[in-house]
Amino acid sequence: MAMVCLSDFEAFAKKYLPKIAWDYFAAGADDCTTRDENILAYRRIRFRPRMLRDVSVIDIRTKILGSEISFPVGIAPTGFHQLAWHEGEKSTARAARAMNTCYIASTYSTCTLEEISAAAPGGLRWFQLYIHRNRAASQQLVQRAEALGFQGLVLTADLPYTGKRRDDVRNGFRLPPHMKVKNLERAFEVCKMSPLDPSVTWNDIYWLRSLTRLPIIIKGILTREDAELAVRHGVQGIIVSNHGGRQLDEGPATIDALVEVVEAVRGRVEVYVDGGIRKGSDVLKALALGAKCVFIGRPALWGLAYKGEEGLQDVLRILQDEFRLSMALAG
Amino acid sequence: MAMVCLSDFEAFAKKYLPKIAWDYFAAGADDCTTRDENILAYRRIRFRPRMLRDVSVIDIRTKILGSEISFPVGIAPTGFHQLAWHEGEKSTARAARAMNTCYIASTYSTCTLEEISAAAPGGLRWFQLYIHRNRAASQQLVQRAEALGFQGLVLTADLPYTGKRRDDVRNGFRLPPHMKVKNLERAFEVCKMSPLDPSVTWNDIYWLRSLTRLPIIIKGILTREDAELAVRHGVQGIIVSNHGGRQLDEGPATIDALVEVVEAVRGRVEVYVDGGIRKGSDVLKALALGAKCVFIGRPALWGLAYKGEEGLQDVLRILQDEFRLSMALAG
Amino acid sequence: MAMVCLSDFEAFAKKYLPKIAWDYFAAGADDCTTRDENILAYRRIRFRPRMLRDVSVIDIRTKILGSEISFPVGIAPTGFHQLAWHEGEKSTARAARAMNTCYIASTYSTCTLEEISAAAPGGLRWFQLYIHRNRAASQQLVQRAEALGFQGLVLTADLPYTGKRRDDVRNGFRLPPHMKVKNLERAFEVCKMSPLDPSVTWNDIYWLRSLTRLPIIIKGILTREDAELAVRHGVQGIIVSNHGGRQLDEGPATIDALVEVVEAVRGRVEVYVDGGIRKGSDVLKALALGAKCVFIGRPALWGLAYKGEEGLQDVLRILQDEFRLSMALAG
Amino acid sequence: MAMVCLSDFEAFAKKYLPKIAWDYFAAGADDCTTRDENILAYRRIRFRPRMLRDVSVIDIRTKILGSEISFPVGIAPTGFHQLAWHEGEKSTARAARAMNTCYIASTYSTCTLEEISAAAPGGLRWFQLYIHRNRAASQQLVQRAEALGFQGLVLTADLPYTGKRRDDVRNGFRLPPHMKVKNLERAFEVCKMSPLDPSVTWNDIYWLRSLTRLPIIIKGILTREDAELAVRHGVQGIIVSNHGGRQLDEGPATIDALVEVVEAVRGRVEVYVDGGIRKGSDVLKALALGAKCVFIGRPALWGLAYKGEEGLQDVLRILQDEFRLSMALAG
Repeated sequence: MAMVCLSDFEAFAKKYLPKIAWDYFAAGADDCTTRDENILAYRRIRFRPRMLRDVSVIDIRTKILGSEISFPVGIAPTGFHQLAWHEGEKSTARAARAMNTCYIASTYSTCTLEEISAAAPGGLRWFQLYIHRNRAASQQLVQRAEALGFQGLVLTADLPYTGKRRDDVRNGFRLPPHMKVKNLERAFEVCKMSPLDPSVTWNDIYWLRSLTRLPIIIKGILTREDAELAVRHGVQGIIVSNHGGRQLDEGPATIDALVEVVEAVRGRVEVYVDGGIRKGSDVLKALALGAKCVFIGRPALWGLAYKGEEGLQDVLRILQDEFRLSMALAG
Repeated sequence: MAMVCLSDFEAFAKKYLPKIAWDYFAAGADDCTTRDENILAYRRIRFRPRMLRDVSVIDIRTKILGSEISFPVGIAPTGFHQLAWHEGEKSTARAARAMNTCYIASTYSTCTLEEISAAAPGGLRWFQLYIHRNRAASQQLVQRAEALGFQGLVLTADLPYTGKRRDDVRNGFRLPPHMKVKNLERAFEVCKMSPLDPSVTWNDIYWLRSLTRLPIIIKGILTREDAELAVRHGVQGIIVSNHGGRQLDEGPATIDALVEVVEAVRGRVEVYVDGGIRKGSDVLKALALGAKCVFIGRPALWGLAYKGEEGLQDVLRILQDEFRLSMALAG
Repeated sequence: MAMVCLSDFEAFAKKYLPKIAWDYFAAGADDCTTRDENILAYRRIRFRPRMLRDVSVIDIRTKILGSEISFPVGIAPTGFHQLAWHEGEKSTARAARAMNTCYIASTYSTCTLEEISAAAPGGLRWFQLYIHRNRAASQQLVQRAEALGFQGLVLTADLPYTGKRRDDVRNGFRLPPHMKVKNLERAFEVCKMSPLDPSVTWNDIYWLRSLTRLPIIIKGILTREDAELAVRHGVQGIIVSNHGGRQLDEGPATIDALVEVVEAVRGRVEVYVDGGIRKGSDVLKALALGAKCVFIGRPALWGLAYKGEEGLQDVLRILQDEFRLSMALAG
Repeated sequence: MAMVCLSDFEAFAKKYLPKIAWDYFAAGADDCTTRDENILAYRRIRFRPRMLRDVSVIDIRTKILGSEISFPVGIAPTGFHQLAWHEGEKSTARAARAMNTCYIASTYSTCTLEEISAAAPGGLRWFQLYIHRNRAASQQLVQRAEALGFQGLVLTADLPYTGKRRDDVRNGFRLPPHMKVKNLERAFEVCKMSPLDPSVTWNDIYWLRSLTRLPIIIKGILTREDAELAVRHGVQGIIVSNHGGRQLDEGPATIDALVEVVEAVRGRVEVYVDGGIRKGSDVLKALALGAKCVFIGRPALWGLAYKGEEGLQDVLRILQDEFRLSMALAG
């Protein structure tokens, strides 16, 4: 089977992953409307291609928060990479470094931050954070990440509670016994309830600010009002995201929300977007609409499921080639 | 089979109910366009989710006409509950009371008002009424309902004649011999024609007013013009409804009509809506568009068909949980 | 099989008619886009139903060009009724008279005008005319129709050449040897080419006017410009029609064109519409948009195919009942 | 099997061509959205048919850059005709001459320009050109074409790199060993990389202008901005084209782009369009929107696949008949 485009990796993952893992990665909230809208919204955007421009040399490098990456596609934070590939987040970190791009490691990793760092020293990595009821646990995570050389802190804002993903409920989804949410092992012990704190508000950004010198990127913003609040509370970046359509169903597609967020932010902080990227031309559309960089979630997992580190590199390389070609053809 | 969302109950009912009963409950007028539009129209409405609000405590209680209910979802009037569950409306009444919400008992019940009242003393109930050719029969029903402690009178305005539901015609639908429209037994005797009076007009509201001290809620309003007339004729509440798409096909979806009715009413009376509610987020949308409360019709019947009183409670509990989660995730 | 709605008759006809006859009746030009649009356009029109009006007495009679018909649905001119039922147009004439409505007999009938008249003396009938290269043949037809008591002359304007109906080409459609276009037998003899004259213009209406005292109705108008021309050239009525989507594909649906024609005509002549009527509520929509009456084409043929005169009466009766019910439910 | 419309030829070609050839001709870039949009966009355009005009004589001849053709449909440049029919472009040239229309021979022909000319002396032909890294090769081609009597030079502007056509990648598409891109044989020898030069800009039009007295037509324009640039750089014609949806996916359909190009050009040069023409009425629409002539790509190949020269004539004749009929029926 030739792996020609990202859908080929999706088909592979659907065929070879255990159903419970596939369902978990594929899950959207409720009717999965928003999950699917993320993709469909890109299809509704049309290029106006320009001709006869010199496209013999195309530079696709960019910088995010000052760090250069080889092209404007990073790895979004997703949980439980061992469900896709036995070496889990260690492979993800290696692939990201090999392709010279940014990897946002999830709190819900099946490897510790230390293992991830050790697997690919020197790679550009950000750490994704939830604020827990047990603030000490969150503080400790932030400080571990900073000490390990992570260069950004991504606060996920859209998960005060977990969305209703029907298949996960039907499957009774839980991690297999040999996998663990290693970063949180101690935190879980002190907290019988869901460890996430639904009472978090904008003021907690100030608290986070007080813990670290890392830039703070907020993830999950979908409206101009929240974008303005984010800027005012001093974040360095915004990821327009609806959590892959896994939280509130029937909100906007991220590429649609990007437009109003970019307009509200007026260049004061960097804006990124995730959700629905399936082709290099989607990356170009996101950039044309004001994103500095995009992040891929499920496609990264499909790459891992295909061949671990190598498979993820294949995915990134295809996106890179398609993106470069789109730029050339769009003039 | 795990019952995770309302569609699971629908699938169960379709599988286990006798075809003639399923067809009757599922029926829409003509091409069923409006029945299906009721659902599709919710899908077209998008949230603008807000982040980082303190959603640790969520109060979903509300009041309708002064009575508190545990969450803004009541049971719409539908006929012939014994077709779904052998104890019929008695089970419905018990489930509504157990969940602390409002049940609108239909004139076309297969239990008498007295049986319904006795099954769940103290529950919040309204009585749904048609005006009959035999006005004495209507008057007697109103007075029985008031005496039994029903707290509201719901006048259905959209059934001067019964809509054309093709499957019912094909099936030659009629109640099995052991079921009866018990509330009307005497009225039918004196009236050879269809007992409903197609000559009813707005002035009959004054007549109804003269019979009872109960608040009058009018059901079946779809336009701003009729909403204005309803307010002027002194009703206490309006249920925006198209009878589940069972009367005139190709009118508006109820959630679309809600907007113009709410605008016309300008808060002078309470506005409710039924039709097409399938998820907790639908409830949130209806409330965001101005409804004080929604009512569910077919999903209640699916719950009954699943496990009687218990099944209906399951349906209500799922809606309640989904509604609460939607509120939290939408901020 | 219960015949509940017009689609039931369509299914019957598709099943029992010879393929070549079904294909001929069903045919649309090219991709059949306009044929199907005629129906889909009705689906896009929504009612605003009004409640609590006295609908105990509903009068659905109307008058077209001064003649009363029992309800505003007549029989559009279609050819070759013997393909549907062995007695052909004689049955059509009888059914129309029995239902007290208007039948527009086609030039391309398989019975003569004389046979049609004799089959149902006293029925309200109009005669549909093409203008032939051989003007004497046309003149003779007009005068025969007038002498036989036809009360209107319907000039079809949209067939200078026959549209490209792919299935008819594939089938090599032609009438079976025992059927004949009886009205034209002599005319065909003198004319080797297609007998229709593609050089006909608006001025030929004056010629037609000079031949007869019958009112002239022009059929095939789809634009405000042509509607204005029709009025100026002194016609008494306009049938908005696209020949059932059998001529130019990808023109407007007739119900959409009706709106602009009615607006242009400003009540100076009566406006009718054909194409896409499948339910009583379609009739109501056409009337609400300004038509004085609608005409049905294919549904009449399905009725004939089902049971001849009786089947066509069934079709008309269903439409009548549905129309009356729609009026009541729409208030 | 009767060949009644162009889809019949498509079905034939799909059935009888080797899969690798069919896939190559059918291919679109990425998700094939633009390829399919080219067709769907025509379906969205509606006629306003006018009646009772004298359509007994219809003249469908036209002139492009001063040369008369029998009707406004030419043959667009497509590559590798031997994949469709063993005599390749020689058959194409003969069919075009027989039908008295224009054939744009592709650089990527499997016959030489000399063979094409010899096959149909005196036919109206243009030559399609890419600008190669090896400018001498391009210059030589231009001069050969001019010497051979080609009457126009079509510069393709939308292929700085080849679009990503997934099926071709999967199939590992390449020409069978017995076919050659004969026009380029020497050029390929001197050029290891792709022979096309991605650094071409508008200024290269001046270079081309200096090589030849032939009119220059630019192909691949989709925006008003590029149309204006084309006029300013002195081209004689513009072909609105997206390369059959084979280059950048998710740009505009050509018939939609035509409108803005025609508006920008304001009659200063002739404008043509290719892509999505499947019926005679599509031709009429393109002309009504300002095109002087249309060109067909894939349908010509289907015609070749069916019966070579004869099959292509069949395709052209069907389009001609349909176009003439559409003109008559649209008035």
